[in-house]
Amino acid sequence: MISIKSLKRYSKKADYTYTLGAYPTFELLNRHPEYVQQVIVSTQAKPEIQEKLDILCRKSQVPCLCNDKVLDKIREKEACIVAGVLRKYEDHIEADKNHIVLVNPSDMGNLGTIIRTGLGFGIRNIAVIEPCVDVFHPKVIRASMGAVFSVHIESFKSFETYRQEAGNKKAYYPFMLKGSVSLSELKQDSSSSFALIFGNESSGLPDSYLELGQPVRIRHTDAIDSLNLAMAAGIAIYEFTKRQDIL
Amino acid sequence: MISIKSLKRYSKKADYTYTLGAYPTFELLNRHPEYVQQVIVSTQAKPEIQEKLDILCRKSQVPCLCNDKVLDKIREKEACIVAGVLRKYEDHIEADKNHIVLVNPSDMGNLGTIIRTGLGFGIRNIAVIEPCVDVFHPKVIRASMGAVFSVHIESFKSFETYRQEAGNKKAYYPFMLKGSVSLSELKQDSSSSFALIFGNESSGLPDSYLELGQPVRIRHTDAIDSLNLAMAAGIAIYEFTKRQDIL
Repeated sequence: MISIKSLKRYSKKADYTYTLGAYPTFELLNRHPEYVQQVIVSTQAKPEIQEKLDILCRKSQVPCLCNDKVLDKIREKEACIVAGVLRKYEDHIEADKNHIVLVNPSDMGNLGTIIRTGLGFGIRNIAVIEPCVDVFHPKVIRASMGAVFSVHIESFKSFETYRQEAGNKKAYYPFMLKGSVSLSELKQDSSSSFALIFGNESSGLPDSYLELGQPVRIRHTDAIDSLNLAMAAGIAIYEFTKRQDIL
Repeated sequence: MISIKSLKRYSKKADYTYTLGAYPTFELLNRHPEYVQQVIVSTQAKPEIQEKLDILCRKSQVPCLCNDKVLDKIREKEACIVAGVLRKYEDHIEADKNHIVLVNPSDMGNLGTIIRTGLGFGIRNIAVIEPCVDVFHPKVIRASMGAVFSVHIESFKSFETYRQEAGNKKAYYPFMLKGSVSLSELKQDSSSSFALIFGNESSGLPDSYLELGQPVRIRHTDAIDSLNLAMAAGIAIYEFTKRQDIL
């Protein structure tokens, strides 16, 4: 286990990451206590937060330490009264389930929000295609409000690798401004599981994706250039899952 | 006009605000040049940005000054290469149109995102019920990507004031976890314009709103507590407008 004094601000190279904030730390302790190395709590934390942490940590035999200096060192911009230290882990998506595929996402807040919304609508498998943001970055974990610990997320070198390893025999729906069918008029192919595919925040999906499955557009007025990526993904996920029984 | 040297970091009390970033500044100059006092550009701005600004500013006879020190003083956390200085203005929503009503929104990013999504789906009238975030804050303007300049936004002291002054004779749809009808099964009342009503990020709408119009819930799994406010609003706006011709 890494010593608390040697903890530094998050780095992509490190083999551990952080949950910054009480809520994602609770989620971590509830879902994956086996990954947690320690929990750090501020002297400013409310008694009810301390109490809840204490119960969860004792249950999983995770050390819980009080140390404001370390919290101040590892936090990002925002204040932080609770942090979990966890080792990074390898994960694989389930090939036979519905997928969200994010091609080159570049905003950590968007990635976290999409993970959380996917979980809310019952999609628990998310493929990200490199280059993309670091899925273990504390900002992604925080934006997901800990939902990252309830889903499978896997990075792939390319869309082709994703397709070979996990995305075979799927109904593909790339979301593109040039999509030939509008989301609200789409007839969903229910004979196989689906993959909802979204491009980068600035550049969207390359035209080559027009050849893949059924390209879809979300109609909007020309008063805006495009919807925010997380919003477009959330609306698509809602529309694709709203008739399902799992909700 | 306020002197460039006396410009300070944004304050709610000031009678002017800022567009921070090139995109919202372009939107401001295109939509409401009459409110712009001056534009400030960094020496680091790309030539094509400088050129576009120059054309827009000359068209509207707005002074465009190069000053890195002032930009550094007025920017928020993020870097900023272009800023517009504009006087705050009074605005009123159109009573006969569809409305988004945000009761006590507390997150500036959410407010901006909702404004932008509303505009994308053709809803150009947004009522905010106090207490709430400052709608003129540069973070709201930035999160909306300048969409604030293409819609009407009005603050009201209370929901009752909104109802009396602008929200009469509307089909009300308060969005609540306890809503009796699911969004995906809702039969929309098309005989009158609608108001989609959303509560605060943490507390939602008080139970008293259950008595108002048709309370709606957005079904989701119990793996999450609730959807993000902007996401819930975006999904609702999409569902309510997707059959309209305006898109």
